[in-house]
Amino acid sequence: MEDARREALDYADRNREATLAQLVEFLGIPSVSQRPADRENIRRAAEWIASRLESVPTARTEIVSTDGNPVVYAESLEAGESAPTVMFYGHYDVQSAAPLDAWDNDPYEPVTSGDELYARGASDNKGMIMACVAAVEAAARSGGLPINVKFMIEGEEEIGSVSLPSFLSAHREMLSCDFVLNPDVGMLGKELPTIFYGLRGMFSCRLKIRGPSQDLHSGGFGGIVRNPIHALCELVAGLHDDEGRVVLPGFYESVRPLTDEERAVMASLPLDEESYLRQSGVPELWGDSDFAPVERAGGRPALDVVCMEGGTRKAAIPSEAEALLTIRLVPDQTPAEVHAQLVSHLKSHVPSSVRWNLEDCEGFPASITDRDAPGVKALARSLEAVWGRPPVYHRSGGSIAAVGQLQETLGVDSVLTGFSLPDDRIHGPNEKLHLPTWSRGVKALVHFLYELAEPAASR
Amino acid sequence: MEDARREALDYADRNREATLAQLVEFLGIPSVSQRPADRENIRRAAEWIASRLESVPTARTEIVSTDGNPVVYAESLEAGESAPTVMFYGHYDVQSAAPLDAWDNDPYEPVTSGDELYARGASDNKGMIMACVAAVEAAARSGGLPINVKFMIEGEEEIGSVSLPSFLSAHREMLSCDFVLNPDVGMLGKELPTIFYGLRGMFSCRLKIRGPSQDLHSGGFGGIVRNPIHALCELVAGLHDDEGRVVLPGFYESVRPLTDEERAVMASLPLDEESYLRQSGVPELWGDSDFAPVERAGGRPALDVVCMEGGTRKAAIPSEAEALLTIRLVPDQTPAEVHAQLVSHLKSHVPSSVRWNLEDCEGFPASITDRDAPGVKALARSLEAVWGRPPVYHRSGGSIAAVGQLQETLGVDSVLTGFSLPDDRIHGPNEKLHLPTWSRGVKALVHFLYELAEPAASR
Repeated sequence: MEDARREALDYADRNREATLAQLVEFLGIPSVSQRPADRENIRRAAEWIASRLESVPTARTEIVSTDGNPVVYAESLEAGESAPTVMFYGHYDVQSAAPLDAWDNDPYEPVTSGDELYARGASDNKGMIMACVAAVEAAARSGGLPINVKFMIEGEEEIGSVSLPSFLSAHREMLSCDFVLNPDVGMLGKELPTIFYGLRGMFSCRLKIRGPSQDLHSGGFGGIVRNPIHALCELVAGLHDDEGRVVLPGFYESVRPLTDEERAVMASLPLDEESYLRQSGVPELWGDSDFAPVERAGGRPALDVVCMEGGTRKAAIPSEAEALLTIRLVPDQTPAEVHAQLVSHLKSHVPSSVRWNLEDCEGFPASITDRDAPGVKALARSLEAVWGRPPVYHRSGGSIAAVGQLQETLGVDSVLTGFSLPDDRIHGPNEKLHLPTWSRGVKALVHFLYELAEPAASR
Repeated sequence: MEDARREALDYADRNREATLAQLVEFLGIPSVSQRPADRENIRRAAEWIASRLESVPTARTEIVSTDGNPVVYAESLEAGESAPTVMFYGHYDVQSAAPLDAWDNDPYEPVTSGDELYARGASDNKGMIMACVAAVEAAARSGGLPINVKFMIEGEEEIGSVSLPSFLSAHREMLSCDFVLNPDVGMLGKELPTIFYGLRGMFSCRLKIRGPSQDLHSGGFGGIVRNPIHALCELVAGLHDDEGRVVLPGFYESVRPLTDEERAVMASLPLDEESYLRQSGVPELWGDSDFAPVERAGGRPALDVVCMEGGTRKAAIPSEAEALLTIRLVPDQTPAEVHAQLVSHLKSHVPSSVRWNLEDCEGFPASITDRDAPGVKALARSLEAVWGRPPVYHRSGGSIAAVGQLQETLGVDSVLTGFSLPDDRIHGPNEKLHLPTWSRGVKALVHFLYELAEPAASR
């Protein structure tokens, strides 16, 4: 098997340029899931990756319809029932590239500059999908896959994987596996291979404030009617106290405290104030000073208005204003409980001069996985084989709905990692992929296939 | 002259339908001045009204270029030097009709339903321009105009008449007149002909708050960096105290107090809480309770954020957020002084975790005119001749830059009135014109031409 592993690593090396050329093609499809208008691009992206998986080759590849965007499924089960089965997760949809004028290049015309490849989706998540494809292909063409492999590439990650739960329920048998490898989380630094054992959950909703029954001339009514923009601003301003803590009633009650060991590990990570300042470009950090920034991102909940809109014209008090609120949840908060807390807070704080309602409330809980699972250990050995050092373990501030859904519906854990870097600007303008890191990732994934087949203990 | 007056009133009656058909044509041109893309429509509207003025007939009609949108000028000076000269002011530009889906009909395809004509600009200001044109035409074709008449119809009222000052300076002689008749203000009720003796001024600017150097993933940075939307909300929320008073330092110091007589007149107007609630559709009124709502609108300054924007996506902390602030000024506040107050307030209140700046700061002061001027008295008699009751006198909460500019540059006062009603939804969706009131307005303007020629005292 060590010969096969070496052959596969060589294959991956030789095939690097071809795979990157394919990635550029994949990135050229603007498969934004937030916009219904992009259905055609969603379909093209699904077909593109299905066709690529077929050529791995896989034994079976399907584009499976859902109530929303299709899921691309593929499998190669030749290793037989005694071998472990890993399912690679990915998503072919991308975040909107707006605002377009903040990009140096067209987000869908990938540009390579030095070691970086710039495009929407380069890191999140098309580059990661292609790393998995490249590794599996390398093993498949070097004596055959040592383990059973499945791929589940969805098209709604950026909109909360809304159709995934029913897809999972409908295809339990097809999707059965020992665990999921999810490379959608990234790493803490170029030289810091990372395994994440936690993700934040998410609750989101739209808060609408309605004032006058129609837009009013601000000359005739300025100083007489409550401006819905002002009322909304007061409400948003009132969601945090002066120390940056969320004031919803009972908000922190079910938050699982960080253990001393977790705090010690986090303190050892290269995620100090300076690194966050550098990554964000803000003049100073902000937030609950009882916790270090790295702890606030990974282990504490956060509330953000990510979009706010009200008014269109210079001379009118608008009839309504709206804020899109997101709350990143940590164990053991639930979306239902923060929803109830928000409603309770609004009931006692919305002024009687306006009307309000919440719309599009949805969410999923945070997740935590076992750092001692065999899949985690195999991945740790694989990362060490390439980077020459063991990975660090961290809880991510991000949220991936699929992880909780897979746990809930199929009972399988996800091993979380990735080869995107903190400065890759995922979700922002000029998203990029660091190509040398990506290549190391492909190699680590090749190792991973063989490490799973032959755990260190049995060697 | 009484024969001529009767003949002119008859002429206006007979010509009513033809004039309204022309108004419908005029309203069909979407001459929105806020959008540079509408330059072609601005030009079409200017040409349309110039051609209509020529056919009054006027002795001279010109479309005069400015740095911005052209001004349409016309004159008929046959009454001779001993006769008074009145200049009719109007504006052929309109407010944007956004949000379009709030309209029951296309805003630029006028629809008549019962007594109402629905279209953007029906009341503000194309209907008023056509009332002036109809009255002048009626007199011109009934024995000749008894006074000298000028028309100045600009195309930038809805964007603060930015090019008007230099136009006025460049054409002092052409524009010389005894006073200006400005029908852009309206009336307080169908049976309440109104002369306004004051207008609020305006200061406006964009407040930009900048946080991270680019949009940040809200999972990675939520709880660590100050969200510019939150910072902006806090600032906006902090611009008023709990009683609805503006907290800028010294904001009310130069506000000229309402006299007891003014407060008594305002109290007698049919503008009680109930009427404002009905007009606005809000659940309750809001504002400084030391003043009645009618006093707050007419005689007190007001600050409104009329547009606020930040963020585009569900999963990102935006790099910036922006609010368009407008402050309605009263005598003797100046735009420069409130600008300085705002800067001073922001300097001490913007948190150090974000950066800020003000853009597009501009404004003009409020104006007050003499209630005993001959033009006011002639208009009062004309309104009484049609409505059977003397007009009420009021200070408008609205702002017309041209009024202050005409005072400053040419030294002429404006007599302010109009035939739009409080429920005409000017600047809002489903703007309309009440046709029977408009017809009464045309008749009052016919009277006005003869009342100016032969003041009551000399009859």
